[in-house]
Amino acid sequence: MGKEYKEILDFACITDAHQRIKSYIHETPILSNSTLNELVHATIFFKCENFQKVGAFKIRGATNAVLSLDEIESSRGVVTHSSGNHAAALAYAAGLRGIPAYIVMPENAPAVKVNAVRNYRGIITFCRPTLESRESTAEMIVNDTGASFIHPYNDYKVIAGQATAALELLKKLPDIDIVLAPVGGGGLLSGTALTVKYLNPRIKVYGCEPASADDAYRSLAANTIVPSHNPITIADGLKTSLGDKTFPIIKHNVEGILLVTEQEIIDAMRFVSERMKIIIEPSSAVVVAALLFKKLEWSGLRVGAIISGGNVDFEALFSDLKRKFNIS
Amino acid sequence: MGKEYKEILDFACITDAHQRIKSYIHETPILSNSTLNELVHATIFFKCENFQKVGAFKIRGATNAVLSLDEIESSRGVVTHSSGNHAAALAYAAGLRGIPAYIVMPENAPAVKVNAVRNYRGIITFCRPTLESRESTAEMIVNDTGASFIHPYNDYKVIAGQATAALELLKKLPDIDIVLAPVGGGGLLSGTALTVKYLNPRIKVYGCEPASADDAYRSLAANTIVPSHNPITIADGLKTSLGDKTFPIIKHNVEGILLVTEQEIIDAMRFVSERMKIIIEPSSAVVVAALLFKKLEWSGLRVGAIISGGNVDFEALFSDLKRKFNIS
Repeated sequence: MGKEYKEILDFACITDAHQRIKSYIHETPILSNSTLNELVHATIFFKCENFQKVGAFKIRGATNAVLSLDEIESSRGVVTHSSGNHAAALAYAAGLRGIPAYIVMPENAPAVKVNAVRNYRGIITFCRPTLESRESTAEMIVNDTGASFIHPYNDYKVIAGQATAALELLKKLPDIDIVLAPVGGGGLLSGTALTVKYLNPRIKVYGCEPASADDAYRSLAANTIVPSHNPITIADGLKTSLGDKTFPIIKHNVEGILLVTEQEIIDAMRFVSERMKIIIEPSSAVVVAALLFKKLEWSGLRVGAIISGGNVDFEALFSDLKRKFNIS
Repeated sequence: MGKEYKEILDFACITDAHQRIKSYIHETPILSNSTLNELVHATIFFKCENFQKVGAFKIRGATNAVLSLDEIESSRGVVTHSSGNHAAALAYAAGLRGIPAYIVMPENAPAVKVNAVRNYRGIITFCRPTLESRESTAEMIVNDTGASFIHPYNDYKVIAGQATAALELLKKLPDIDIVLAPVGGGGLLSGTALTVKYLNPRIKVYGCEPASADDAYRSLAANTIVPSHNPITIADGLKTSLGDKTFPIIKHNVEGILLVTEQEIIDAMRFVSERMKIIIEPSSAVVVAALLFKKLEWSGLRVGAIISGGNVDFEALFSDLKRKFNIS
């Protein structure tokens, strides 16, 4: 696969995306932690998309895609199938234009995710919890309504939107050595890598991935997309596999994929909770785990790390607390 | 009880304390949340001491007390009995002067708190888990070593230190209407109230307290200290009762105490975790609960709220996660 993406997704697409979305998103803070820096012997800058609207970077891509539609297209609405942050993000973005967002969700989706989409007035259609049912339901909606399908990651407008997180990071910190991002379907990693390489090809980019959902690692090794099949990982946002738009960008712009174990992800979440007092989702903790458990030699480096989101299902924790204090 | 405290703890004591400690502490950020503002119909500014060193405001008072000792006093070290944030804070502060910190802890203190004190090189003496044993053990150490006893709250130097959080808040936001702080032993609330009233007596100050540990509420009603006896509340930092130094300050400078239920505290913690993506301890969540469950009519007001700390025992949460993902 070649570099066709370069003609469609050049640096101007990324800066245009930022102009288009910046008044609808937060410019998220960049945080450091001295304990982590001492442990890792490096200077680490976290770009905190857990503080982003909708709790995740996904708002960037969804908003860029929705605002890029022309008047006629947009009037028919948008559709996606997702049980995660992209669904809520798309509903939010559609709300900005006052157009319908049709969201296909599996009937067993957690209440917290259903409620997030409802909060932003997404129109939910439930389907059976299989990829086939999701896709056919979404297709049916497209046929019925003429709505535009917005893929969660395999879409150049979405990728350009996700690329704006790294743009904000590098504008503040142009002199870093490495940038890290988690990789699931590859929207965030491909966008991040493009921004970094367009701005400064000497900065290295690594993806971070659960070892138990290592399709990006295996795809780069095999030089072709090797999808995951129902991987089991706490990093539920990273279960998806690369797409035919994200893979070539990652292949040409990412130095490598760092793998972390489930134990390391949980230990990293715990470190961030206890030491930094912020909430990050397991899919973001893979990046912290790669740092904490030294999946590269970080000594002396300045590292930018994209914390993708903060949407954790607190049901378990809070039901425990209530039990302990006898609250029904 | 009169206003004798005014002669000992005037506004200069608070600004002096800030000068003394400011290079050793973080000036913590002030955060807002638009969802909360909409729910409460007010503009709320959180002074986030959960991001403070040692994870709590306690570092302010402990550092002011330790740095205020003269050379001879300080050379003999400091001692306290505490199973909470004050113990770690005092150990940290003693470390700044290179003097010993003798910490008396009950033998059943959670490992996480013991480790925090050890991290800062506190010298731990374990005692039986009764107030009597704590006090007699601390007294024994004072007699043996000549160390200065630093009470967690009933101490003017400690109160002056805690008062500096509100000082930073009001320097940034002089035009707020109300300031809230949690109340346990009253160190933070009395310091906060003094700062506020010295700077602008028209700003109102309220303490927030668990209904199941309502000694400050009852003490103000009875006009004398009414201690709690082994209260049961998730807000473990607020189980202590007012002291003879904190009570008069609170009596003369605080408009009232707002009570919240355990259910409201847990719901507030959950709101902050899910919506603000930051970690606050239950003792801080009482303040958020008072806002969220409208213990006053907040409409149209600008409210400063002191978030006291972020030290949560994550053992339960993370052992759940590990069980779920079959990690030993």
